[in-house]
Parts: sequence; C-alpha cells; structure tokens
Amino acid sequence: MDFAFTDEQLAFRDTARQFADKALAPFAAEWDAGSVFPKDTLRQAGELGFCALYCDEEHGGLGLSRLDAALVFEQLAAGCTSTTAFITIHNMATWMLTRFGGDAVRARWAAPLIRGEALASYCLTEPNAGSDAASLSTTAKRDGDDYVINGAKVFISGAGDTDVLVLMARTGGPGAGGISCFAIPADAAGVSYGRNEEKMGWKSQPTRAITLENVRVPADQRIGDEGQGFRIAMAGLDGGRINIASCSLGAATAALKQAQGYVGERKQFGQPIAEFQNTQFSLADMATHLVAAQQMVRLAAWKLDQGDADKSTYCAMAKRLATDLCFDVCNQALQLHGGYGYIKEYPLERYVRDSRVHQILEGTNEIMRVIIARRVLKDLSFL
Amino acid sequence: MDFAFTDEQLAFRDTARQFADKALAPFAAEWDAGSVFPKDTLRQAGELGFCALYCDEEHGGLGLSRLDAALVFEQLAAGCTSTTAFITIHNMATWMLTRFGGDAVRARWAAPLIRGEALASYCLTEPNAGSDAASLSTTAKRDGDDYVINGAKVFISGAGDTDVLVLMARTGGPGAGGISCFAIPADAAGVSYGRNEEKMGWKSQPTRAITLENVRVPADQRIGDEGQGFRIAMAGLDGGRINIASCSLGAATAALKQAQGYVGERKQFGQPIAEFQNTQFSLADMATHLVAAQQMVRLAAWKLDQGDADKSTYCAMAKRLATDLCFDVCNQALQLHGGYGYIKEYPLERYVRDSRVHQILEGTNEIMRVIIARRVLKDLSFL
Amino acid sequence: MDFAFTDEQLAFRDTARQFADKALAPFAAEWDAGSVFPKDTLRQAGELGFCALYCDEEHGGLGLSRLDAALVFEQLAAGCTSTTAFITIHNMATWMLTRFGGDAVRARWAAPLIRGEALASYCLTEPNAGSDAASLSTTAKRDGDDYVINGAKVFISGAGDTDVLVLMARTGGPGAGGISCFAIPADAAGVSYGRNEEKMGWKSQPTRAITLENVRVPADQRIGDEGQGFRIAMAGLDGGRINIASCSLGAATAALKQAQGYVGERKQFGQPIAEFQNTQFSLADMATHLVAAQQMVRLAAWKLDQGDADKSTYCAMAKRLATDLCFDVCNQALQLHGGYGYIKEYPLERYVRDSRVHQILEGTNEIMRVIIARRVLKDLSFL
Amino acid sequence: MDFAFTDEQLAFRDTARQFADKALAPFAAEWDAGSVFPKDTLRQAGELGFCALYCDEEHGGLGLSRLDAALVFEQLAAGCTSTTAFITIHNMATWMLTRFGGDAVRARWAAPLIRGEALASYCLTEPNAGSDAASLSTTAKRDGDDYVINGAKVFISGAGDTDVLVLMARTGGPGAGGISCFAIPADAAGVSYGRNEEKMGWKSQPTRAITLENVRVPADQRIGDEGQGFRIAMAGLDGGRINIASCSLGAATAALKQAQGYVGERKQFGQPIAEFQNTQFSLADMATHLVAAQQMVRLAAWKLDQGDADKSTYCAMAKRLATDLCFDVCNQALQLHGGYGYIKEYPLERYVRDSRVHQILEGTNEIMRVIIARRVLKDLSFL
Repeated sequence: MDFAFTDEQLAFRDTARQFADKALAPFAAEWDAGSVFPKDTLRQAGELGFCALYCDEEHGGLGLSRLDAALVFEQLAAGCTSTTAFITIHNMATWMLTRFGGDAVRARWAAPLIRGEALASYCLTEPNAGSDAASLSTTAKRDGDDYVINGAKVFISGAGDTDVLVLMARTGGPGAGGISCFAIPADAAGVSYGRNEEKMGWKSQPTRAITLENVRVPADQRIGDEGQGFRIAMAGLDGGRINIASCSLGAATAALKQAQGYVGERKQFGQPIAEFQNTQFSLADMATHLVAAQQMVRLAAWKLDQGDADKSTYCAMAKRLATDLCFDVCNQALQLHGGYGYIKEYPLERYVRDSRVHQILEGTNEIMRVIIARRVLKDLSFL
Repeated sequence: MDFAFTDEQLAFRDTARQFADKALAPFAAEWDAGSVFPKDTLRQAGELGFCALYCDEEHGGLGLSRLDAALVFEQLAAGCTSTTAFITIHNMATWMLTRFGGDAVRARWAAPLIRGEALASYCLTEPNAGSDAASLSTTAKRDGDDYVINGAKVFISGAGDTDVLVLMARTGGPGAGGISCFAIPADAAGVSYGRNEEKMGWKSQPTRAITLENVRVPADQRIGDEGQGFRIAMAGLDGGRINIASCSLGAATAALKQAQGYVGERKQFGQPIAEFQNTQFSLADMATHLVAAQQMVRLAAWKLDQGDADKSTYCAMAKRLATDLCFDVCNQALQLHGGYGYIKEYPLERYVRDSRVHQILEGTNEIMRVIIARRVLKDLSFL
Repeated sequence: MDFAFTDEQLAFRDTARQFADKALAPFAAEWDAGSVFPKDTLRQAGELGFCALYCDEEHGGLGLSRLDAALVFEQLAAGCTSTTAFITIHNMATWMLTRFGGDAVRARWAAPLIRGEALASYCLTEPNAGSDAASLSTTAKRDGDDYVINGAKVFISGAGDTDVLVLMARTGGPGAGGISCFAIPADAAGVSYGRNEEKMGWKSQPTRAITLENVRVPADQRIGDEGQGFRIAMAGLDGGRINIASCSLGAATAALKQAQGYVGERKQFGQPIAEFQNTQFSLADMATHLVAAQQMVRLAAWKLDQGDADKSTYCAMAKRLATDLCFDVCNQALQLHGGYGYIKEYPLERYVRDSRVHQILEGTNEIMRVIIARRVLKDLSFL
Repeated sequence: MDFAFTDEQLAFRDTARQFADKALAPFAAEWDAGSVFPKDTLRQAGELGFCALYCDEEHGGLGLSRLDAALVFEQLAAGCTSTTAFITIHNMATWMLTRFGGDAVRARWAAPLIRGEALASYCLTEPNAGSDAASLSTTAKRDGDDYVINGAKVFISGAGDTDVLVLMARTGGPGAGGISCFAIPADAAGVSYGRNEEKMGWKSQPTRAITLENVRVPADQRIGDEGQGFRIAMAGLDGGRINIASCSLGAATAALKQAQGYVGERKQFGQPIAEFQNTQFSLADMATHLVAAQQMVRLAAWKLDQGDADKSTYCAMAKRLATDLCFDVCNQALQLHGGYGYIKEYPLERYVRDSRVHQILEGTNEIMRVIIARRVLKDLSFL
C-alpha cells in the first residue's frame, strides 16, 4: 500500500488545477446565471487532453488510469462543477465509443471527440426507465445495412448541443440482454430535442429530452455486438460513478476552501468566527469527510484500473459515500457563511445546487445501495 | 393538555388553505422564476387579515394568538413558502409597530399595514452585525424634534418595495441598551437601496441593502422609548422565529404531499416505487419529523401566548428543530423524485431552496443553540 | 390546543417523581449490577396505584388517561428505567386482562395485579415470530371446559418471577384472526422457564423463555372471544409503545440532568467544560430533542385517549421518534462525561444500556416505520 | 498510489486472523462476563510478536510499519476488541520505552515487554487532567540519582496487573514543556492501586487509579530528556490513535460478519430478513462506512510511517471517523438482530459496549476535532 502520488499524477493535477483556476472558476457563476454551455472552453479542455483522459493512447486518448482521471476531474470540478460534470460524461461516452466501437465508429468520431471539437451525449434514461434502466423501450430494428431507431430519452446531458448520441436501444427481447449500443449523429433525420430543462443546478450544461422517429443508422455504427449494449452502458457507468463522485470532491474542496478563508475574516462578537468552537468543529468534520470521500473514490478508481472482480461494488460505494458527504460539506460551508451563503455573490449556494444532483444521477444513491447490498449478501470476501 | 384545534382554528386553517391553493400555489413557480414580488396578492392576503394576524384588535388587527397565526402561516407557506415568509416578516414588523409604537406611529402606519396596502421591512442586520445584532452601528442622533439617522442595513426583506422601515439604530452607548427602534418612511430623503440580491431561493421577495444618509425622522416616529429598541427587536423575533418555523412546516407539508402522490404513480421495476421499503421508510420518517416539528412550533407559540418565562427558549428550540427537520423533509422528497426532483417542472427543488434560508435567518440555528444552551446551563426547570 | 398540565397531572407527576427519587434512583445501580428484580419495590409502587394506572376505576385501577399515565412513567423511569419498563408492561397486561377479560378472569387476577401483589407477563413473541407476531405457532386446543396449550415464548419480561401470563395462542387458522388471549397462572402444570437471559441492560427485570407443554387452562380464563387475541395484543401495544417511549423520556431526562450538573463542575483547560461551545451546543440539542420527544409521546397518548382513528399511527410515530432521540441523548450525555461516562460509578452507561432495547421491543423501530408508512401511503389526512 | 497489500502484509494479516479466531474469539464472551484479564493469551500474542509490532528490530521488536501493525490489530480486534485494545496500549508504551528510553531503561524492560512476559501501562491521565493532559500535576523531583514521584493517575489500562508504568510527571514548570517520562516498576514502594473500575465494556482489561507516594525511581529510568515527556506521550498517541481506530475496525468487521450471516438465516413474514430492503440498505451502509473507516486508518498509518508533517492531523481524522462510524456499524448490527442483539448469547451488545469507549479515550473525539481544526485554520495544504 502506497498513498503517494506519482510525479506524473502531481503534474496532471497541477495542470488541471491551473485550468480550473483560469478557464473555469472565473466564469462559473456567469455560466450558471445565464445557462451558458461553454463550448469554447470545452474545446480548450480538449486541447489539454481532458476530453479523453482514459481513452487508450492508440485511439488518440491520453491513456490515463481511472485514478489519474479522477484526480484531474476533482481539480476541474473545483473550478466549475457543472461544466466538469459534462466533461466527465463526454469522457465516459467517448471511452465507450472508442473502447467498444469498431473501426467505422472510431474513424468517424474518435478524433473530434478526443480533441473536444465534437461532443458526446450518453443516452440511457427513458421516461419510464430511470433506476430500472434495463427495461428501456427504445427500439432499434435491423433494416438491411441500417438500424431504424424509435423511442424517447430523457435527462440527456448536452442533448441539443452535442454531436453524437451514444444511445442504448433494444434490438432483442426484454431485459438487459436485448439491448445494443449505437453511435448516432445528433443531427440525424428523425432526431428531435425537447426544451432545455430548467434545473436546480448544472446550468452550464443543457439537459433535454430526445425523440427518435425512424432514425436510420448504418449498422457499422453499432458499438459492440447486438445484446452487449447494457453491459457496455454499465461498464461506462462504473467509471461514470467515479467521475461524478470526483465532481463532488471538487465542489466540496472549493466549498471548504471558501469557508476556511471566510471564517478567518468574518468577525462577530468581537472576534473572527474561526474562534468559535462550533466553527472549528464544523470545519474539522468537513475536512475529515472530504478526505474520507477522496480515499473511497481513489480506492474505487484503482479497483477499476485493476479490473478487480468487485470493481462495480467499490464504484457504487465510492459514488454513494462521496456524493452524500460532499453535498453535506457544501451545505455546511453555506451555513458557515450565514446570509452570505445564500446569495449568488458567493459561490456556496451554487456548490450546493450543482452537487445535489450527484446523489441522483449515474444511478441514484438508492440504486448504489442495491448494488452494494447484493454483494454484501453474497459474502464479505470483497472487504 | 389538549391537542384539539378549536373550531375557530379549524376555520382559520381552512381559509388559509384555500387562499394558499388558489392565490399562491398556482403562481409560486412563476414568481420564483421571474423574481416577482406579488404585491397584489399581498393586498388580497391583507383583505383576509393575514397581514396583521396577531396585532391587537383595538389597533385593527385580527387579534389572533401566536398559535392561531402559526397555523395560518403553515397553510399559506404550503402554497408559496417565499411569499408567506415575507408575509410573516410584515406581520412581525407590523406587530412591533402597533404594539410598541405611540399614537403618532400608529396613526400613520397601522391601518395601511394591517390592510396590506402598505408593507413593512424589519431592519436589524448590518454588514458587520449579523448574529451579533446588538453591536449594530447605525446611529440615530437627536436633533430638535427629529432624529437624524446614518448607517447601513443588509439582507432586508422587501427593501426597495416596502413602505416603512422598522429600523433599529443606536441612540446611546454600545451594546443592546443603546439601541432604539424607528418607523421610517421607505422613501424618506437619504434612504437609498442596493440592487436586488440574487439569492438561492426566496425569490418572490426582494432583498436589498439600505444606506441611510442623514435621514431625518420626527421623534414621534420612534417606537418605544430610547434604549428599548433591542428588546423590541427581540420581542418581535420570538414571534418571527415561530413564523419562519411555520413557513418550514408549510414547505415540508407540501413536499411530503407531492412525494406521497408521486410514489404511488411512478413505477420502476414493474411496480410503483411506493412498494419499495426504502420509499416507505423514507416517507414514514418524513411524516414523523413533520409532526414532531409541528408540535414544537405549536408548543412554542403557546408558550409565547402564555407569556411564559421561558418563551424565548421554546421559540429558539422550535425554530432550530423545525427548520432543520423540514429542510431535510424537502430534501428527501426531492430525492424520492429522482431526476424529476431536480427540475423546475416539479416544485421540490424550489421547496429545498426556499426552506434552506430558514436555517440561517431570524437568528441562525447556531444562535438558537446559544440561546437554548444559556437556559440549559442555568437549570432544567423549563423542561 | 392547550399545553398546560392540570393540577391533577402535576400532582401525579410530583408523586411519581418523589417515588422515583426515593424508592428507585438510589437502588438502580445495585439492581443493575446484581440483576435484582425488586418485587418489594413493585409492591410499594402498587400501593401508590402505579401498577394499574389506566385500568378502569370500576375494576380497581386509578382510571387515569394514557396521557396521565405517560407522565407518571416518565418520572418513574428517570429513577430506574429498567424497573419502570417492567411496571409499564405489567400495566399493559393488567389493562388487557381487566379490559377484555370476563368476570372469572377479573375475579381471579384483577385485585392482586392492581395492588402489585401479583405481577403479570405479556407473552406474545416466539422464537420464530418476532416482528411477524401474527405468525405465532403456540396452540390452544379446546378440550371440554379447558384449553390445552402447547408452544414456546421468548423474551418474556418478568417470566419466572411473575404470577400470571397474558398469553397469545392460536385457537384457529393461520394469521391474526386465529389467535386468542389467555390468562395462565405462571405456576400452572406444564409451564417451564428458561434461564434468566443475560442482557445488555434491563437487568432489574428477568427475561426468560417459556415452554408450555399441555398446559390446561379453564375456558373462562380466555380473555376476549376466540380470534380476538391479536387485536387485544395490539390494543395493548398501542399503550405499550407510549409506555416504553415514556421510559426513554425518563432515561433521557435523567441523563440530561446528570450532564447539566457535570459540565458545570468538571474543569478542563482552566474552565468548566460548560464554557466550551461544543458542550453548550450538545446540551442545547439534547434539550430540544427531549422536548420534541415528550411532545410526540403526549400527543400520541392524547390521541389514544380520544380513540382517534389514527391512534396507532401516532403511537408508532411517538415510539419511533422518542426511543431514537432519547437513546442519542443518553449517549451524548455519556460522551460529555468522557471516561467517567464509561464507568459504573456514574449512571450514564446504564442509561445507554437500558434505553437501547426500547428501539427494539414492543415492535422494533423498523416495524414502527412499516406501520407509519402504511398510513402515509393511504392519504395524509391524519396530519 | 497503490492500494494492494504486499505478500508480507497478507501473511501478517492471516496470522493475526488465525490467532483471533482460535485464541481470542472463542473466549471473548467469557472474559467479558468474568472480567478476566487473559495474561496467558497475551503471552501467546507476544510469542507471535504482537506485543511489539512496531518496535525497532534492533530493540527486539518486529520492526513493522504502523500500517502493517494496524492491519494486525484490526484482525485481532475482530476476535476480542477489549483484549486487543490492551495489546495496542502495551505496544504503544513499549514503543515509547524502546524508542525514547536509554540503555538502562531498555536493558531492564525491552525484552520481557516485547515477549509479552511483562506488560506495560501508559500513565498520562489524571483526575483533573483528562482532555487537558498538559496540565497534569503529578510531580517528579530530582533527589540525587533518583527522582521522587508523587501524584495520582486515573483510568490506567492494565494497572494493578502490569509490570511497568510508562508515566508522565512534572519535573519543571507548568505546561507541556515541564513534563518528563519515566519507566516505573509497577510494584515500586509507594505505588498503590485503586479498585478495578466497573466499566460498560473493555472488561477483559482492568482499569485502575494509581496513587504514587514518594515513589523513588533511578534517574536512568527517565525516558528521554527532562521536558520531553509530553512530546513523547503525544508521539505515542499518534500511533495509539491508529491502534484504537483499528480496534474499532475489527469490532465493526466482526459485527458486520455476524449480521450478514444472521439476516440470511433469520426469517420473518415468510422470508429471510435479508430480503427486506431496509436490511439490505443497512448492510450496504455498514459495509461502505467500514471501508471508508479502513481507508482513513490506513492512510493515517502510512502518513505516520512517512513521517509526514501532517501525520498528527491524519491520525486525529482517522481516529475520529473510524471510531464514530464503527460504533454505528456495531449498533446497526445489533438492531438487525432485534431482541437477539440485546442478549449476551450473541456478541453484538459486547461489540457495542467495547467500541463505545474508543470515541472517548486516546483523546476524545472532541479533542480530535480540536486538533484537526487547528490545522484546517492554518491552511488547507494538507489535503
């Protein structure tokens, strides 16, 4: 066991921190207020390799480990949680596409996605298939050299502003085994988009429903074999959960930093509020929980990198714990700011709003508990 | 001990519920989205007596008990938490003005405030005097028959859109004993307003800073004697804490209702999510905590009505407990909605945003603990 | 709504407090250490009416309301939680027997039980029927003028030292509708007792398993009609839950008092630990949660007294909340005592051990949530 | 970063697990019930090196890292938490003695302590110096070649049954800088012991107060220089905190294992309780929190091994988090057992009692927060 970062990891972390400080943090409030999707910034992120951190080098990615990628996302998210969350989804979809897609898929999409010149959406959730994703009803019917796709997706990050949809549709019978994965151009005939959902947070990324009516896709744009789609989607999600958890870590770190500075300056009753024991104990718990959350995320990322048999359990534990603890850290930081925590002049309420959804998506924290419990009930050898 | 409502209480409650259902709930999302301060609606509330529920009848109020008023506010807040919160502040300020103000003050302000034709702001907090309100530095200097007021206030609900400022300023030495209370016309020469603060929630009421430069007020517009201002402010706050706690009760009730309906309809894994034990246990705890919070608020209101020696302790306990528990109820209700809880098409995220500030204002929940602890350390005879 | 105690309630409370201070508190540690079942003290309690507080006066009880009884139990439990818990179970069983039993049952048992000269055990739980009590398998077969009873009960409070078993057995088909209730002399032929279970707490009352082999009981010793047994058992439990919750209130009150005194005396870092903000906030939360728990218990007791349609829901909410919050209060009080909280020279660890089981018995707090959730899912009109 | 165990670590872990399974677990209930201090077993532990895991090899220890030692203690504690806790204290004291003591100290004590043939007590706490250890008042006055020691210690683990007291006494002025450390034979003239404290748990190790009246110790039995005693005591405690936290991990692991098995067997409502979602979610959270606690402890141990500048902060975070989370795991496991969790036939209530004190000693968790907060307020570079 060795908890030290490698020099390379430190270098990635520093690069990410600088990008977060310069290219994300100064604009985050503005993007939030105006619901701006900062595509130029995403392209800059792509130039630094942040759009395909863990794609294989042979496909043009940086070829980082999931652990390395998690460290990068954590730094970026401290700059803008919402924008980074989109970047992580793009990374996930791009990894799925390059990892499981054939040459035709990669030839068309890999390069622009990796450079951040094209953006990808991950399309799994449907109106009636949220937590129970395997029950999805969008269909893809083989028709000659094409598939014809019909159905609807909801809560799709980036939808309407991205270039390719990595979409799960049913090619076979009911259940997980009947699902396949496709790369669909976002502007394909028959694809239409709902309005940009007004959300509590995550405002710098659009969220839309998608309707697919007789959307025709060449068969070579299927990612993986028929029937492998759910497995591919879930393989993506293991990493996706680490990514989202990392975004929570970033938000919590930013919140703690902000609070740490504030309590030293803000005076009440003749002294900085840092001198009140309640302030101190609150900060102590925030720091402790942040470190615990970080460790869980890093451990899970490492398990994923190792191809550990229990990697999905660890990813679920990390996602559950980190998104819960970090939301609380953000919320406690808000409280330490009193009224100032509640106004948009300070970033606290944004951290709270942005990190709140992490307890819900990429599998709700209730679904995480289902996944963990299933493993616990088998035996405890994973501990 | 008798936990039954009187017929009169039930009648008030029903009237309030109807008003909430018809005049508040249908517009709450719109007011939130557009930061609309619904003055017309406030006037309608005034027509029903909701703008002066616990002002004495001889001054034109409804003369209700604090307990009765709490029941009304709870109902209203289920319709629109933010707007009701303003109504409660207006009630508090109007009560202070009519209860402690002399004839000149009442002659000028009582009638329009009670009818909701004029609105009042409560002006205590300053940039450097939040939790430590008694250290405020706004000054009121006697000059002939007038006072001349200089200073600054922040986080003033309604400021810029209200008609009278019930304002605490220093007429004497440092500390609580040097503070007096004044009724100042909102458009008096020398009063200027900051921009409408952009807040996490409470968007249907404006919040602004106020600057007072040589604002001249006739001495007969002082409320109470010189040096009584802090006591008056705190007397107002005892009720104010019950009021805000009631607003949290309303938000939590609305959230629980929404969740109760949703889980019966939303299906996942082939059954309504109401059939999952986690859903059930979550709802059970929400209901239990809501009832516990209600009881605390009602008990505290009753103590206030009785003039109980420990009324302030009970108001602090009620405010602390109810605002914490009810925020959690709203937040759990959001979670039960999954992704739908995070979008503005559903009211959950608004309940969370609106109720969050209740843990901060009218004395932060940390200040509530200070108040309670002071009493506990003396002896436990209040239990 | 009126939260004031009547003079009579205050009188009962004071009598109970005096008894607790003189006859219970001084001996509680000793009874705990030596696993002493203080039957003499129980008889003294009977002389004051504490063994049949809410039995009808016509049957010889005090005829108090459940609310009155709860106030008494709360006081007694502050003296010795474990002994009072037994008293409450005796009250419950005695009430069931006098309320639903016929003349033959009452003639034989009412007077000595009410006076505390005989003691009663409530016998519902079986090795394979804990939370799922309605699945019990002890049988009572009619044989002429008798019933012949066979089966086993576990976790029976007082068993082996009590005089009558108020026992649920199956006279009919499966499920709740096939169960009947009986008064069985504890020394009846065929009744045998297991060893006194060694428990974490509740040591001043014995807990034993009971085996019934061809135990013959006259039919007139059936309590209620055939098939009514489960309903009678549950009717008993509504009150039983309030009683146990009251025992938690008593333990928490005693713990808070002990802590309040200790922090004023114990000095560290040159000052009483009462001066540390963490101590203060901890005490503030303990007091707040204690008051909230009290109110829930009183409300539920009042609903029970009113015969409210939702009385069982309220009893479940009160039991769940009060036993959870009060355990935490005891545990926090222990923590405030540092090392002294962990040794038996101080009562804290006993309060923790004794109150722990209240979260489990009379229906676990998980079963309480099941009960509450069932009601919530129907509609929210009970709020 | 590498989360894999080395082969050597796995070997140590397995050896410890076997010892726990064979030599500790089968007797733990008995030692608890009878307050038996199993000195023979401690000697067996010594034979395996467990009495001096992290003492330098040159002094006869195993020379393991703190991380390795933590893994061993975790395994042992799953067998008997209380006995292992004593072993960890003995390790800490033996390390202090061999690390900071001179040749005379080592010559006399190192070998028997390391073999477990002699046992050591760590003597810091005094009646009036608990959390504020630096205010201790036991004095050591130089008299020729000796020191003469007077004073009193309380809550000393092993006292009365150990062979050497590693004791902090004041040789200089007030505060931490005036304290020195001594190795005092437990049977030295003038040393007397109080009665064995009756405690909530930790019953397999005696706890006594010590009175020192004119106890004469040769100067060469001072450990370290004059004035270094507090630093040495604190250096010991960094490891001591990891050790105690490891004991909590062991208790929680044992509790989780017990619960995992039980829920698969125990049936209610016609199915194993493992099938209820509440059971599943409870287990999922227990496992998640256990893993999080493990990681924190291992990270802190590694920081200590590295001599990291922030090692004390990490040890404090690990101790705070692990002892809190693991107590909760034990307590949840008890709850899952229902009534069976409350009786001594099952080990749950013992796990709860034993692990409770870990939140108090080696510095209360409140003191941990003080330590962490002090660091947080400086800056966040330690994150």
